[in-house]
Amino acid sequence: MRDMKIQENSPGLSDVPGFRVAGVACDIRGQGDGRLDLALVSSASPCGAAAVFTRNRVAAAPVALSRELLGRGKAFHGIVANSGNANACTGKDGMSDAKTMARLAEQGMGAPPGSVFVGSTGRIGRLLPIDRVEAGIREAVVNLASTPEQGERAADAILTSDTCRKTITVRFEHEGRPVTVAGMAKGAGMIQPDMATMLAFIATDLTAPPAVLQEMLNAAVAASYNAITVDGDMSTNDTAILLANGESGVRLTEGEGELTRKFRAALGAVNDCLAEKIVSDGEKITKVVEVLVTGAADDSDAEKVARTIGNSLLVKTSWYGEDPNWGRLASSAGASGAVFDPERMDLFYNDVPVLSSGVPQPENLARWREIVRRKKFTVRLDLHTGRGSFRLLATDLTEGYVTYNMSE
Amino acid sequence: MRDMKIQENSPGLSDVPGFRVAGVACDIRGQGDGRLDLALVSSASPCGAAAVFTRNRVAAAPVALSRELLGRGKAFHGIVANSGNANACTGKDGMSDAKTMARLAEQGMGAPPGSVFVGSTGRIGRLLPIDRVEAGIREAVVNLASTPEQGERAADAILTSDTCRKTITVRFEHEGRPVTVAGMAKGAGMIQPDMATMLAFIATDLTAPPAVLQEMLNAAVAASYNAITVDGDMSTNDTAILLANGESGVRLTEGEGELTRKFRAALGAVNDCLAEKIVSDGEKITKVVEVLVTGAADDSDAEKVARTIGNSLLVKTSWYGEDPNWGRLASSAGASGAVFDPERMDLFYNDVPVLSSGVPQPENLARWREIVRRKKFTVRLDLHTGRGSFRLLATDLTEGYVTYNMSE
Repeated sequence: MRDMKIQENSPGLSDVPGFRVAGVACDIRGQGDGRLDLALVSSASPCGAAAVFTRNRVAAAPVALSRELLGRGKAFHGIVANSGNANACTGKDGMSDAKTMARLAEQGMGAPPGSVFVGSTGRIGRLLPIDRVEAGIREAVVNLASTPEQGERAADAILTSDTCRKTITVRFEHEGRPVTVAGMAKGAGMIQPDMATMLAFIATDLTAPPAVLQEMLNAAVAASYNAITVDGDMSTNDTAILLANGESGVRLTEGEGELTRKFRAALGAVNDCLAEKIVSDGEKITKVVEVLVTGAADDSDAEKVARTIGNSLLVKTSWYGEDPNWGRLASSAGASGAVFDPERMDLFYNDVPVLSSGVPQPENLARWREIVRRKKFTVRLDLHTGRGSFRLLATDLTEGYVTYNMSE
Repeated sequence: MRDMKIQENSPGLSDVPGFRVAGVACDIRGQGDGRLDLALVSSASPCGAAAVFTRNRVAAAPVALSRELLGRGKAFHGIVANSGNANACTGKDGMSDAKTMARLAEQGMGAPPGSVFVGSTGRIGRLLPIDRVEAGIREAVVNLASTPEQGERAADAILTSDTCRKTITVRFEHEGRPVTVAGMAKGAGMIQPDMATMLAFIATDLTAPPAVLQEMLNAAVAASYNAITVDGDMSTNDTAILLANGESGVRLTEGEGELTRKFRAALGAVNDCLAEKIVSDGEKITKVVEVLVTGAADDSDAEKVARTIGNSLLVKTSWYGEDPNWGRLASSAGASGAVFDPERMDLFYNDVPVLSSGVPQPENLARWREIVRRKKFTVRLDLHTGRGSFRLLATDLTEGYVTYNMSE
């Protein structure tokens, strides 16, 4: 969109009028290292909200609680989130801790009960050090501000094995009024469909009916976080939350108007950017590979092919080795369960043919080699079967990933 | 079975009366290193046959040819197989080469056209050096023998990244007559359901109608090669072939008699042993972990849980690190798509409780640590939902796997 201003690596949510944020260190990891580990997001005005949660059956307590809050459909005032502990597989005590976090945040912000979402990320199966978390929430309440400093601290506080902060702010105008959409996220390992170990918190000063916000968030998530993979795992804690406080005075209604198109573009830009930051910061990766499948019988078949390729260990290790081992790509496509005729399949590295109607084009070997040495390239398959397509951002797999994840 | 004599690491197919085998070096890899790379199996008497092939849509030429031969349902006389080149994604020339291999073997053995199966394994997408393969087949024909030496040479000739020969011979008696079932296999990387990059050739001197042989091979494959995983990939070339030449004079008919039970046990023992040898020789692994899921809604759900755990990179790396990170196990179970209530799930390392009705049992930490240091242990989940169960043999994931597969 021409009139959209995109600022990557912005302060994030503090850019959105009416939102105050804070990030504090309360030693959730018990390392005494002063690392930021608790973030608070607050809107004095009530917000409409939408959210997407992990489909993992072993969902963490904060996911269960936030899902329940969203279901009640009240007005919302904020989010409290921590890193260093996932509060997952923690039973009744874990749920009690998640409720304590929400209640303390609500009380501190002067917000009604049931108006603050909870997010957690980190190791599974350990109870939170709830005394330290409580102290952290109290400190965060005092520090709430709309300054860039607190925006950055909040964005840092949700990181785990991430190597860099992930924020973006998008601004556009509607009928002379400025509208802001900003987001912060954490990613790193365990990234696959259904948003594995990722948190994304997005705020806007537009307002819209909850059903409209939810539909737009669903679409944005499908095209962003659910179209990346690092290691194929799906976590217990994945959460994307969108809060809309209406401070801009701009109100989005149902139907396809100019404002709908603008907001969809802005929300899409925020989530696409955060998703790309997440995959690019996958644990110990060296490459991001776009897997683009077209001509499948349907989108579902295209997704199967893309994911089987993007999650194949043999494919990922060959990418790491910068080996144009297209046989592993073709084999993964065949193993995906998608229906197609291998003798019609075209395969490309970027735009350089590898297979044309199933026939290898080895005269292009030198060009393949040059492409797979790049930090980012595209593997494109056209199955010539139907109109289904899917785009996946995947990564390579390194010894560093293995040694990094041997223990926690 | 009490009266079954099992000899692991036997000479393999040369143990079966009426079968002659050979293994020769014909430099398929072009390295000039004298490595054995072509195996021939021959029975003068016509054999009944059964076979199971990869379900990969990008099936190699030898798979397509062998599947076609089996479909014609004639009597069979042998198998010609090579390592070092998969003859996959090789188009019409590749199919022509596979047919040439079969024809030369048939002519050399004095067998009728369409009576010899073909198997290949190795790199995808390159044409066979067919002149050298032809010379190899001619040499193998001359060397055919029922000696242990040629049995071992044939078993060695089908290996790729395997570190050891994989053979077994099982003998039993029926009404005073000795019956032999023997097998040789290759495995190593890319091992997952549907028999990824594995070849298994089994011979017996019993005879039975093809439909009976096929049903018994299907059951044996489902319980063996399709219940192991190294890296979750499924190859273009997986093939299991059973040849039955009837030389023992023992004939198996339909229905459940004593002979059926004996042969099923013997065939199961051969395939289970070869499958365990394959998973234990997975590329650069250090551990074999049995994932046992019970109490699932049905067997399909149990399989989903077992495979999601056994293929999770985070789980596999934690096994390598000897870290009792059961949170990753629980998260993978939840991510599998199987239907269950996490608050009823029991989880064990061997027989030591980890989760009881979803509640962690951290007082057992020292015992978990001791178990996960072993070369082989069991992860058991009881979902308390239904009667479905599945057993999977899985491996850890090491830096060695990554570096080994960076290039070929």
